[in-house]
Amino acid sequence: MDTQLKERWEQFQQLIRKITSYYEAVGLLHWDLRTGAPRKGVEARSETIGMLSTEAFKLQTSTEMSELLDFFAKPEIEQQLDEKSRRMVEECRKEYDRSKSIPADKFKEYTVLAAHSESKWEDAKENSDFAGFEPFLTKIVAFKQEFIDYWGVKDTRYDTLLDMYEPDLTVEKLDEVFDRLRARLVPLVKSILDSPNKPDTGFLDQLYSKEQQEKFGLFILEQMGYDFEAGRLDESVHPFCTGLNVGDVRITTNYLQDDVTSAVFSSLHEGGHALYEQNIDKELVGTPLAMGTSMGIHESQSRLWENMIGRSRPFWHRYFGDLQQHFPEQFSNVEAEQFYLAINKVENSLIRIEADELTYNLHIIIRYEIEKMLFNEGLSVKDLPEVWNSKYKEYLGIMPPNDGLGVLQDVHWSGGDFGYFASYSLGNMYAAQFMHTMRKELPELDSLIEEGKLAPIKEWLTEKIHKYGKSETPAEIILRVTGEELNPDYLADYLEAKYKEIYKL
Amino acid sequence: MDTQLKERWEQFQQLIRKITSYYEAVGLLHWDLRTGAPRKGVEARSETIGMLSTEAFKLQTSTEMSELLDFFAKPEIEQQLDEKSRRMVEECRKEYDRSKSIPADKFKEYTVLAAHSESKWEDAKENSDFAGFEPFLTKIVAFKQEFIDYWGVKDTRYDTLLDMYEPDLTVEKLDEVFDRLRARLVPLVKSILDSPNKPDTGFLDQLYSKEQQEKFGLFILEQMGYDFEAGRLDESVHPFCTGLNVGDVRITTNYLQDDVTSAVFSSLHEGGHALYEQNIDKELVGTPLAMGTSMGIHESQSRLWENMIGRSRPFWHRYFGDLQQHFPEQFSNVEAEQFYLAINKVENSLIRIEADELTYNLHIIIRYEIEKMLFNEGLSVKDLPEVWNSKYKEYLGIMPPNDGLGVLQDVHWSGGDFGYFASYSLGNMYAAQFMHTMRKELPELDSLIEEGKLAPIKEWLTEKIHKYGKSETPAEIILRVTGEELNPDYLADYLEAKYKEIYKL
Repeated sequence: MDTQLKERWEQFQQLIRKITSYYEAVGLLHWDLRTGAPRKGVEARSETIGMLSTEAFKLQTSTEMSELLDFFAKPEIEQQLDEKSRRMVEECRKEYDRSKSIPADKFKEYTVLAAHSESKWEDAKENSDFAGFEPFLTKIVAFKQEFIDYWGVKDTRYDTLLDMYEPDLTVEKLDEVFDRLRARLVPLVKSILDSPNKPDTGFLDQLYSKEQQEKFGLFILEQMGYDFEAGRLDESVHPFCTGLNVGDVRITTNYLQDDVTSAVFSSLHEGGHALYEQNIDKELVGTPLAMGTSMGIHESQSRLWENMIGRSRPFWHRYFGDLQQHFPEQFSNVEAEQFYLAINKVENSLIRIEADELTYNLHIIIRYEIEKMLFNEGLSVKDLPEVWNSKYKEYLGIMPPNDGLGVLQDVHWSGGDFGYFASYSLGNMYAAQFMHTMRKELPELDSLIEEGKLAPIKEWLTEKIHKYGKSETPAEIILRVTGEELNPDYLADYLEAKYKEIYKL
Repeated sequence: MDTQLKERWEQFQQLIRKITSYYEAVGLLHWDLRTGAPRKGVEARSETIGMLSTEAFKLQTSTEMSELLDFFAKPEIEQQLDEKSRRMVEECRKEYDRSKSIPADKFKEYTVLAAHSESKWEDAKENSDFAGFEPFLTKIVAFKQEFIDYWGVKDTRYDTLLDMYEPDLTVEKLDEVFDRLRARLVPLVKSILDSPNKPDTGFLDQLYSKEQQEKFGLFILEQMGYDFEAGRLDESVHPFCTGLNVGDVRITTNYLQDDVTSAVFSSLHEGGHALYEQNIDKELVGTPLAMGTSMGIHESQSRLWENMIGRSRPFWHRYFGDLQQHFPEQFSNVEAEQFYLAINKVENSLIRIEADELTYNLHIIIRYEIEKMLFNEGLSVKDLPEVWNSKYKEYLGIMPPNDGLGVLQDVHWSGGDFGYFASYSLGNMYAAQFMHTMRKELPELDSLIEEGKLAPIKEWLTEKIHKYGKSETPAEIILRVTGEELNPDYLADYLEAKYKEIYKL
C-alpha cells in the first residue's frame, strides 16, 4: 500500500466507524423502546432516532464517501486492495449508489407515504377493509416500480427487489427452487391433513409462570452456547435479535401465560440469529462486513436451531426432563415423545406467523408468487384478495373468511418491503442443506444432541458460516459449505422424512 | 418578531434540538452501560459514546451557533426576545464561551490527563498511596488554574469554579453561610457524641431479599408521585437519576442484602431528583432550559425527600407498617419509633458518602475550605493530607488512620471536579429553607405525611420549583419561593431541633 492509499484507507475506516457508531446508538434506542422505555418519552425518543439515522445516512451518501469510493475504484489502487478490503468498498458502493439514485424529494415523499400507509394498514387489517387500504398500497407499489427504474432493472423488475434482501438471487433461480419445493410439499401437506393420525396437543393447554419460562429460556440459550457476556435476554411484545456490536448481541422473547412453547421456540430462533452475530470474526469488526450476509442466511441460522435442532426428537429426548423440572405440575405425566409429537403438529392455518414448520413454506411461496405477479406480470393491487384466496385454496386447502385473516395479515407490504418474504423460506432451504452437510461431517450428530452436547454444532456453524460475516455472498457460502448451489430437495427430503414418520404415512 | 428573526430562531431551535438529541442518546448509552450492558460490548460502546459526545460538542461550538448567538445579541434583535428566549440565548452563550475559551489541544491534553489520573487515583486510594497520586493531582490543579485564566477570573479564582456548578454563587456568600453553619453544627455534633443516649440500630442487622426491597422501593416511589409512565426503576452499583427527556426520567438503586435502609433512602433520594426533571414545564421542552437549574437546587430536591421527609417521624409513623408487611420476619417486633431513631443515628465517621444527615455537612465544609485554599490561598497539593486530617480532627473529632480513608476517598478531584462538593450542602440548606416556607404554606404538613398524603408536597415543589427548570437562577428561585436569599439558619434550626429531641439534649 502506498502512503496516499494508506491515508485514504484510514480515513475510510474512520468514516465507517462513525457510521457504525450511529447505527449502534440507533439500535440501542430501538431496543430500549421495545423492551421498556416509558410511554411518555416515546415522542422525543422518536425524534432522536430520526436525527441519528439521518446523520448516518448523510455520511453514507456524503461527498467524502463518494470521493473515497472513486479513489479506491481506480485500477492502480484497486489492485493493491486485498479481498476483504475490496468487499468493504463494494458494500459501501452498493449502499451509496442505491441511496443516491433516488432524488431526495422523491424519497422523502415515499417515506411520508409509507409511514401513513402503515397506520392505514393497521386499521384496514382490524376492519378487514381491503378497499380502504387499496389506494395506499397502489401508491406504494407505484413508488417501488419507479424506484426499480432508478435502481436499475436486473433480469426482471422483481429481481431488483429480491437483490435488496438476498444479493444476487434471481427470479429465475427462485422460480425453479420454489416450483420444485411446492411440487413436493403440497401433496405432503394434503396427505398429512387426510391422515387419521393427529398428535395430541391438549396436554399443552395449561398455565406456565413467566419466571419459570424465563429460567428455562436462559437454560436453553446457555446450552446453545449463547454468550451472556456478549448479550442479554429481555422481554418484548414481538421477539427479536439486535446486534449492537459483536460484543453486544441482544435477544428478546415474549412469555405467554397459556403457551410454554412460544417462548421456548422464540428463544431458540432468536438465539440462532444471535449466535451468528456473536461469532463473526473479530477481524471484521468496525467494517461493513461485520454482519450477517443476507436475510436468508440469517434466517437459516434461526430456523436451523428452532426447527431442525429444536423440534427434533433427540433434542427433546434430552431436554424434556429439564422442561419437566421447570414445570413439574404441568408435565409430570407427559412423555418426551408425546411432547415431540405435539410440537410438530401440522395444520393448514390461515396465518403465516402461526404456521408450523412444514406449511410455513407454502405461505411464503404464495407471497412470492403474488409479489412477482405485481411487479413483473401486471397484477393490479385491487385484484390481490382474489389471487390470494385462490392460492390459499389451491396450496393449503383453505379460504380466508375475510381479508384481515388473508391478504391484510402481514405488515410488510404496507411499508414497501417487497422481496423480503422469500428470505424466510430461503432460510429453511439453506438450513436443511447445511444440516445435510453437517450430518456428513458430524455423523454422530443425533447422539450428540441426545447427550446435550450442542457445542460441536455451534462450532461447526461458526467455522463454516458465522465467522465470515458479510465477506462472502450467500451463494458463495452455500457452495463452499455444501459443495453445491441452493437445492430445495434437502428441505423437501427432510420434511418428508420427518413428517411421514410422525404421521405414519 | 420580524421574518429574519423568525427564521433565525427556527434555525436556533433546530440546532438545539439536535444537540439535545445527541445528549439523549449519550444518556441512554450511559444508562445502559450502568444497568446491564454485556461486558464484551463495552469497548465499542465507549467509542460510540465518545463519537456522539464529540458531535454534540462540535455543534455547541460551531460557527453556526456563534453566528446565531451574535445575531441574537444585537440590541435591536435582543429587545424583541421574550424573557425565556433571552435565557436560552444566554445559556448557549455561556456554554459556547466556556468551551471556546480553551485552546483545543490544551483541552485534549487535559482530557487525556484526567482519564489517566482517575485510574491512578483508584490505585492510590486502594493502597493509601497519596505520594503516588500527588504528581497527577498537581498537574490537574495546574491545568484548572490555567483554565480559570482562560475562563476569566471572577471575584476570586475559586469563584470561577464555583460558578460552573452553582451559577452566580460566590466565595464571599459561601464563606458566610458555611461559617455560620459550621459554628452551629460543630458544637451540636460534639454534644451528640458526648450524649449517653444512642439510638439502637442492632435490630437492622438482618438479611433482606432483593425482591422485597424492590417492591418496597416501587411502593415508596409511587407514594411520592413518581410517574412510572415517564420513567423506570433499575439496579446499578451506584444509584443515579438520568433525565433522557422530560417523559423519560430513570432512576436506579442498589440493593444490599444486609441493609434495607440503603435502597430505601437511595430510592427517596433519586426519586427526589426525578420528580424535579419529570415536572419541568412542557413549554421548556426542546430548549436548554429543560433541566435542573443547578447542582445545588437539584440536590435540594433529593435531600428534601430523602432526609426532611424520608427521615422524619411522621413519615415512618405512616409507612413503617408497610415496611413491616414487606419484611414481617425482620420487623414484626419493632416499633415505628425505634426505626425512626435508628435511621437518624449520628456518628463521626470518616467517609462522606456513609455520613448521616447532620455530620454530612461538615464533610462538605472541610472539602470546600480545602479547595478554596488550593485555588485562592496557595496551598500545595503535597500538603493536602495534613490539612485534611487536621480539619477532620477539629470539626469531627476523628483522624483518618490512612489517606485511603482520608483525602483519597472521593473521585471528584482526580477528574478535576473542583467546586462541585459545595452543591451537596447547598442542597441541604436550600431544602431546609424550602421546607420552612412549605410548612407555612401547608401548615398541616406533618399530618399530611402521617396520613400518607404526599401529593400536596409534590405539587408544591412543582409549582414553586420544578416547573421553572433552568429559566430562573438558583438565587432567583430561593428568593421568589422563600422571600429571602440563601440562609443557613434554616438548616441549622432544623438539625438542632430534630437531633436535640432525638438525643434528649
